[in-house]
Amino acid sequence: MINVIGIGQNRDNITLGALKAIEESDVIIGYKKYINQIEDLIEGKEIIKKGMGDEISRAEIAINKSKEGYTVALISSGDPGVFGMANVLYQIESKYDDVEIKVYPGVSSVNYSADLLGAPLNDFAAISLSNILTPLSEIEKKIEYSLKANLIIAIYNPISKTRKEPFRRFVKKVLEIKGEECLIGIVDSTYTPSKTSIVEIKDLTEDMVNMSCTLIVGNDLTYVQNGKLITPRGYVIRSDIHPFSREHYELFLNGDIAHGERRECDFYPCHYDGQYCDFCYCPFYPCGDSSTGGSWIKGKGVWNCKECTWIHTPEGVNALRAPFTEILEEVDDLKNKKKQLLKLRRACLLNNNPYDL
Amino acid sequence: MINVIGIGQNRDNITLGALKAIEESDVIIGYKKYINQIEDLIEGKEIIKKGMGDEISRAEIAINKSKEGYTVALISSGDPGVFGMANVLYQIESKYDDVEIKVYPGVSSVNYSADLLGAPLNDFAAISLSNILTPLSEIEKKIEYSLKANLIIAIYNPISKTRKEPFRRFVKKVLEIKGEECLIGIVDSTYTPSKTSIVEIKDLTEDMVNMSCTLIVGNDLTYVQNGKLITPRGYVIRSDIHPFSREHYELFLNGDIAHGERRECDFYPCHYDGQYCDFCYCPFYPCGDSSTGGSWIKGKGVWNCKECTWIHTPEGVNALRAPFTEILEEVDDLKNKKKQLLKLRRACLLNNNPYDL
Repeated sequence: MINVIGIGQNRDNITLGALKAIEESDVIIGYKKYINQIEDLIEGKEIIKKGMGDEISRAEIAINKSKEGYTVALISSGDPGVFGMANVLYQIESKYDDVEIKVYPGVSSVNYSADLLGAPLNDFAAISLSNILTPLSEIEKKIEYSLKANLIIAIYNPISKTRKEPFRRFVKKVLEIKGEECLIGIVDSTYTPSKTSIVEIKDLTEDMVNMSCTLIVGNDLTYVQNGKLITPRGYVIRSDIHPFSREHYELFLNGDIAHGERRECDFYPCHYDGQYCDFCYCPFYPCGDSSTGGSWIKGKGVWNCKECTWIHTPEGVNALRAPFTEILEEVDDLKNKKKQLLKLRRACLLNNNPYDL
Repeated sequence: MINVIGIGQNRDNITLGALKAIEESDVIIGYKKYINQIEDLIEGKEIIKKGMGDEISRAEIAINKSKEGYTVALISSGDPGVFGMANVLYQIESKYDDVEIKVYPGVSSVNYSADLLGAPLNDFAAISLSNILTPLSEIEKKIEYSLKANLIIAIYNPISKTRKEPFRRFVKKVLEIKGEECLIGIVDSTYTPSKTSIVEIKDLTEDMVNMSCTLIVGNDLTYVQNGKLITPRGYVIRSDIHPFSREHYELFLNGDIAHGERRECDFYPCHYDGQYCDFCYCPFYPCGDSSTGGSWIKGKGVWNCKECTWIHTPEGVNALRAPFTEILEEVDDLKNKKKQLLKLRRACLLNNNPYDL
């Protein structure tokens, strides 16, 4: 019997299942750094520590020991299924008859790192930059497509002393597709506890990362709040329709709100010269989403849009007006169709089809 | 203080950190199904169970209780950072001053499910099919790009009684981009223990999935072995060069191996009529990668290529020959440049640039 066991990143995130499986094993096999991490749990057992890159021999030894009748624990950091020992063992195992394998999942680096940084995940990709057995062209393609799909990306094995090219390609792709301000969270586990930092991609340099780092690449909605990296997941804040807003959208539904600038208005330009006024009152208020600049007035529970001008930009208004008109049939839809409207907002912000919600 | 705690999928994969944080909390808040899962751990504490979809009120109550001075545990299934409570809480938290939050990572469904199915992960994406607040067009784009990038995909929230359209779109995209035989692992956690199955996308129907399922979509290399879903991660099997192979590649390097069919050979067609013979002996032998059809002869430790014909197909040979010639400078490179050669094999198999390894 071979127990393939993920031990997470530290004692705090080892699982009960992993602990029990370690206890029940006779022989413990793993990369020495990981074995040292669980030293107090394996006293009196046969311990086989191996160097890095020695995965095949670790798997072979595990199989041999299990053939001899021992219960074997093959130790992986994080989760054994994510760039860990599980794949290698299954590939080698097919050489033999009757090898029994059980994989014990663990907390993977993407989860550990994201939770330390704040709440940056939404739909995400996890990609290793190790090009020892994976072509650069394949790694680059995966990064490119993930960025274009607006996935959050967790980068494993970002760099090593001899492997710098994948990291350079990664930085170049992010700059090219996302621009200079794309947010990067860095979790460096050479420190205990792990050290976190957040930078814009234009400021990310090679000396900031090493083999023990995991990077989290933000998407087009990710922002920083009190030092935490956040990607809004979206939620509905129930709220009444303000009388001014009601009045505006009654005119809107009657076709009495012109498209574009409304320079005759006493308040023009209330935000900035050149602003469009179709959505004088934001139809998504309160969106609760700081990614476009809005924020709560602390202690008052009032959503403040002062720093959000998206709803008044020509691009925003042009994307929004036609599909919005299809959704809003009566003013109360601002409240009753809030989910639909928030999806429309998201589709327009991310340049997706606003008619396919 | 609010502890946002991931409790994994079952008692086996709860972490020590989560257990300690639950113990230290006065008030326990969560979706009732998850609270029931930890009932024995929270006796004597104030317990607030909420219905599904009530995330906002759960977050608000957590903040209010922490303002009253209590240590609060906000419970998430899996990892709180993956479609869990962390994002929502951080969004709501910005309404208030001085809310202290700590997130305790957990084993996420992608890890739990993959490890039950075998070892299907490599670079992967995790995508939720819930279109309650995410436009269909956005979900579809993420799936499309992830499939095109050859990422493994973990599908969260695949379907519900009222939300079937995202699942239909997903199936259609997989059929369109990967073809009928793309492998899908299903982990259904309505059962205890979770029930696993593996099907081809052409056979995946709506009645096979429900809200408690996680799906794992294989990539172009994923295969099934003894009922387990495996994606090869790649590894090097050290091996000597067979004398016949040495002879062949000496001729090859001298320019004496013609391109294409070698009908004059006594053994033609040793595999199938129309085969190309440039790589009469496979330069990657033994690759140890069953994704193209090879397998170990059990008990003998011999790699058998009988079912792998890729190296003799016109497409394979045409993709491989020119870049291979740039790598192989002497016959011993078959051994000495094995990593480089395995990357070339992978680039050709996956239609990536074979000159950019």
